[in-house]
Amino acid sequence: MLMEREMLLKENTEKPVIGKHVYGELYGCDPEILSDAEKLVEIVRKASEIGGFTLLDVKAWRISPGVSVVGIVLESHISIHTWPEYGFATVDVYTCGETGDPVSAYLYIVKSLRAKKYTLKTSDRSYEWV
Amino acid sequence: MLMEREMLLKENTEKPVIGKHVYGELYGCDPEILSDAEKLVEIVRKASEIGGFTLLDVKAWRISPGVSVVGIVLESHISIHTWPEYGFATVDVYTCGETGDPVSAYLYIVKSLRAKKYTLKTSDRSYEWV
Repeated sequence: MLMEREMLLKENTEKPVIGKHVYGELYGCDPEILSDAEKLVEIVRKASEIGGFTLLDVKAWRISPGVSVVGIVLESHISIHTWPEYGFATVDVYTCGETGDPVSAYLYIVKSLRAKKYTLKTSDRSYEWV
Repeated sequence: MLMEREMLLKENTEKPVIGKHVYGELYGCDPEILSDAEKLVEIVRKASEIGGFTLLDVKAWRISPGVSVVGIVLESHISIHTWPEYGFATVDVYTCGETGDPVSAYLYIVKSLRAKKYTLKTSDRSYEWV
């Protein structure tokens, strides 16, 4: 799959690559949703839309009893790994460019999995060779 | 794809899920390697072996001029996103269970991309609802 990413790189930006990674752990989620690969794929699709990303592909692997889902966004990814037996999931929303909103995408996933409690951590994945 | 993961969960462990995430930014990498999807797929395969992981699948997306590669490991993932135009790559090695060695897998990728400089950050992705 070949896509051009010039659209993401503004000219004269100080950092040549801007990367934003939002991730964390979700507790007390709905075990039925955590077991449902098709539903999780739909959640990743919608999260990508909410975050303003360009979704290139999304795949799910059933790892009994849980599921791993990875969505490839232009130059980044969204992943959900689930443990329905513990109502537990981990989520990563990692996006590049200045326009995407990974926090909104992350919070949509938190809500969709019906998490009772969650962490939200961030990491700057930009080019910062000093 | 359906795999059983009981092997990863030791009985009587204090935390029901142990997660280790190693990630960072790589600078001054070899642009030819960063553009070579097949080579990057091989690097992810070998990194998975070095880390002691069970690789379920690996996929690459060419995002001109870079590449995104995601390897799905039993209950976790390895990802590489590349920007050959800046000699830049970002890498995530996220694994669950007590036996895997994500640091060795990460350092193998650093070496394979011929990074002149890199960061190495870690995040505990374990179940820790207190």
